[in-house]
Amino acid sequence: MAISNTNLAEMKKRVCQANLDLKASKLVVLTWGNVSEIDRENGIVVIKPSGVPYDTMTAEQMVVCDLNGKLLEADSLKPSSDLPTHLYLYQNFSDIKAVVHTHSKYAVMWAQSGRDIPPYGTTHADTFYGGVPVTRQLTQEEVQAAYELNTGKVIVEAFTSRKIDPNAIPGVLTIGHGPFTWGDSCTKAVENSIVLDEVANMALNTEIINPKCSHIPQYLLDKHYFRKHGANAYYGQNI
Amino acid sequence: MAISNTNLAEMKKRVCQANLDLKASKLVVLTWGNVSEIDRENGIVVIKPSGVPYDTMTAEQMVVCDLNGKLLEADSLKPSSDLPTHLYLYQNFSDIKAVVHTHSKYAVMWAQSGRDIPPYGTTHADTFYGGVPVTRQLTQEEVQAAYELNTGKVIVEAFTSRKIDPNAIPGVLTIGHGPFTWGDSCTKAVENSIVLDEVANMALNTEIINPKCSHIPQYLLDKHYFRKHGANAYYGQNI
Amino acid sequence: MAISNTNLAEMKKRVCQANLDLKASKLVVLTWGNVSEIDRENGIVVIKPSGVPYDTMTAEQMVVCDLNGKLLEADSLKPSSDLPTHLYLYQNFSDIKAVVHTHSKYAVMWAQSGRDIPPYGTTHADTFYGGVPVTRQLTQEEVQAAYELNTGKVIVEAFTSRKIDPNAIPGVLTIGHGPFTWGDSCTKAVENSIVLDEVANMALNTEIINPKCSHIPQYLLDKHYFRKHGANAYYGQNI
Amino acid sequence: MAISNTNLAEMKKRVCQANLDLKASKLVVLTWGNVSEIDRENGIVVIKPSGVPYDTMTAEQMVVCDLNGKLLEADSLKPSSDLPTHLYLYQNFSDIKAVVHTHSKYAVMWAQSGRDIPPYGTTHADTFYGGVPVTRQLTQEEVQAAYELNTGKVIVEAFTSRKIDPNAIPGVLTIGHGPFTWGDSCTKAVENSIVLDEVANMALNTEIINPKCSHIPQYLLDKHYFRKHGANAYYGQNI
Repeated sequence: MAISNTNLAEMKKRVCQANLDLKASKLVVLTWGNVSEIDRENGIVVIKPSGVPYDTMTAEQMVVCDLNGKLLEADSLKPSSDLPTHLYLYQNFSDIKAVVHTHSKYAVMWAQSGRDIPPYGTTHADTFYGGVPVTRQLTQEEVQAAYELNTGKVIVEAFTSRKIDPNAIPGVLTIGHGPFTWGDSCTKAVENSIVLDEVANMALNTEIINPKCSHIPQYLLDKHYFRKHGANAYYGQNI
Repeated sequence: MAISNTNLAEMKKRVCQANLDLKASKLVVLTWGNVSEIDRENGIVVIKPSGVPYDTMTAEQMVVCDLNGKLLEADSLKPSSDLPTHLYLYQNFSDIKAVVHTHSKYAVMWAQSGRDIPPYGTTHADTFYGGVPVTRQLTQEEVQAAYELNTGKVIVEAFTSRKIDPNAIPGVLTIGHGPFTWGDSCTKAVENSIVLDEVANMALNTEIINPKCSHIPQYLLDKHYFRKHGANAYYGQNI
Repeated sequence: MAISNTNLAEMKKRVCQANLDLKASKLVVLTWGNVSEIDRENGIVVIKPSGVPYDTMTAEQMVVCDLNGKLLEADSLKPSSDLPTHLYLYQNFSDIKAVVHTHSKYAVMWAQSGRDIPPYGTTHADTFYGGVPVTRQLTQEEVQAAYELNTGKVIVEAFTSRKIDPNAIPGVLTIGHGPFTWGDSCTKAVENSIVLDEVANMALNTEIINPKCSHIPQYLLDKHYFRKHGANAYYGQNI
Repeated sequence: MAISNTNLAEMKKRVCQANLDLKASKLVVLTWGNVSEIDRENGIVVIKPSGVPYDTMTAEQMVVCDLNGKLLEADSLKPSSDLPTHLYLYQNFSDIKAVVHTHSKYAVMWAQSGRDIPPYGTTHADTFYGGVPVTRQLTQEEVQAAYELNTGKVIVEAFTSRKIDPNAIPGVLTIGHGPFTWGDSCTKAVENSIVLDEVANMALNTEIINPKCSHIPQYLLDKHYFRKHGANAYYGQNI
């Protein structure tokens, strides 16, 4: 484990900016959100400090730790209390490079309702290749023993037990709590949080307009998802 | 086919501005929207490039093509992936000069619900002379063969098969996807997207307040629509 | 009928500012709103011009007319198409000095639903001393003959036939259309439009939370209304 | 009773700033909100003046009184009409140092519906250790005799009769009216108003998505509440 100071400064800058972007996107009320990024090669994770106000947040405040959550800098602030969840996701979803947690309104409503977000349209399909799963409820023992770690475990369980690919559905609802999203960069993970809240809002009202509304057909889900992802993607510029 | 550079520069400026107006009107999240304009005399279409962020968008980046979608400038960016839909609409709706596509929230909710937006009030009637139609679902073959072109085809089919005049109802919902609107200028097409999302929101909640609410009477629809459109319009200034 | 230029300039300034305030309060999309003020002594009404964009609106553009709608200035712009409704209200509600019309979202939803807004709380009671009435539907003849004038007539009819005091309930919903409010100044009439949209939103969702919700008791309605209005008011400063 | 001018200036500054923060957080429309703070040692309360516009509000305008509501400064403005409610809360909830009242949208909707806000998620549990209670309706006599004082009484009654600890649930809905929140500082009381409106919105829509949704389990409520409150709290920095 080794990391040059230069890379660390860049990581902190990106993580700080992603937290500020989250706030600017109106997904975060008060201090209810956090972003982390991993450098897998060097075994380093950078995450937002706990309960720090956004309007005075600086890159220097970002907390650096290893994959066991051990703080690596002197005079470090305390990391986000959700750090063990982030770490467990990094350990089990091997392709992801950043994790975001928020209490964004519409995603929370679905998390509280205990329901998956159904794939009702192409806005959903452009980012999530199928319904966004909700975790099972944690047991009393799981909550009392190691709540944040076990939150990571039920997330991974939701993907494993239902054979969902976390790269194809880069987000989850933790029941009664709220969303986590991830991606191959801080920017992408934040973007996935934005999309998740938007499709959560759309799905809620789609059901009001038509309680018998249907999921989009699998072939249209395929079309939109693969228009933007994978070898045959043709959306955006080739940069 | 020929176009002076001067006109092209103006077209690009208008199309770029319309895209920015769309973003400013809050109809667009991330990069989910595009505007195009046609110069019918010269057979030229200008459209937003695919997946380009709005905050750095410039008029120069706008993509120029002919009515077959052939790019006409060297070093052109890739056009919006929805270009074939725009082109098919220009080919079949002979009076329109600009097309807008968004994933604006409320219009998407109706599109996902699979229902036409009913004309519940004068806000609707001021712009849309009747319900805003939703297209039929594309078949698997249509999606896989030429999705964006066939999206144009089911839009035109919705108007033709139901004998709707696209000049009188300048917008549509593509099922499970979202709205397209058009008009005789970029400005007007963007305005129609704004109105569509607003009336979609109003219609959704009108039904919640009164599940047995009625369409406005045909004579009131006539009054409001023709107060603003056609030879006897008397709304606005005579400029 | 006579009016000094000074007063006219002040009236125009107030009416222009009230229109801009309406836009700033987010009650107005595009150009969907208008404010007028009356100088009863001199028989002068000043109103917003029709279909003029808000971002370039100037006090000079405000339109001056008499109580019959006759334009009183050379090179006047065309007045708001709703002018005859405003004039009829001034003629029949003798205490009001300003009228506002908008297509504000929540008030329109209730107007389209064809229902009065029930007095569910003190936010409502602080401004409206009872439910906000919806007009009856205009007949085909009324719409075709003199739509805007007859809109004024059904508003007045709603208050007269149901014995409602327009000073105690300074607003109405025209069915399938939207709200009009009034007051003893432009500022107050705009404020009443703000309150109306807010209580319309609250009432809509109150019914969702509890479909069997009750009106506030008459004695609480009395308390709140008379805390702010009439001889025994004690809210605000004595200025 | 004695207070140095310096402390008073600081109190006024804090109360003024809290009122402005309330406006900035979009919880307040027009002048519908007020904040007060108590100096228990000196028996002094500072509160917003009644009906004063936010955009010209200054710290000097804040009103100073004793615990009986007696104004303590010459040329004082009139205090918020809700002062007697604030005073009664200070007299009966011995740990609180600030009180906030608003007509924030979502909290009002629940107040008007006559229902407690159920604890559907961790966003709720992070601040409120159980459902947020709604008061009983005041009788006609209570409203007519001393409305604002009796509003304080039914709030305290709601906590006493249902054995709720006002420190653990720092907010209430007064039926048909709106929310009051409190805390150990102006900042905290304002924050509690922000959280209350947010969870009110989330609860409303959680029930729409799943009419049979459940409260979060008691052990998860415990976990989240005590993660942030009390001797074993571990959220935030130790400052």
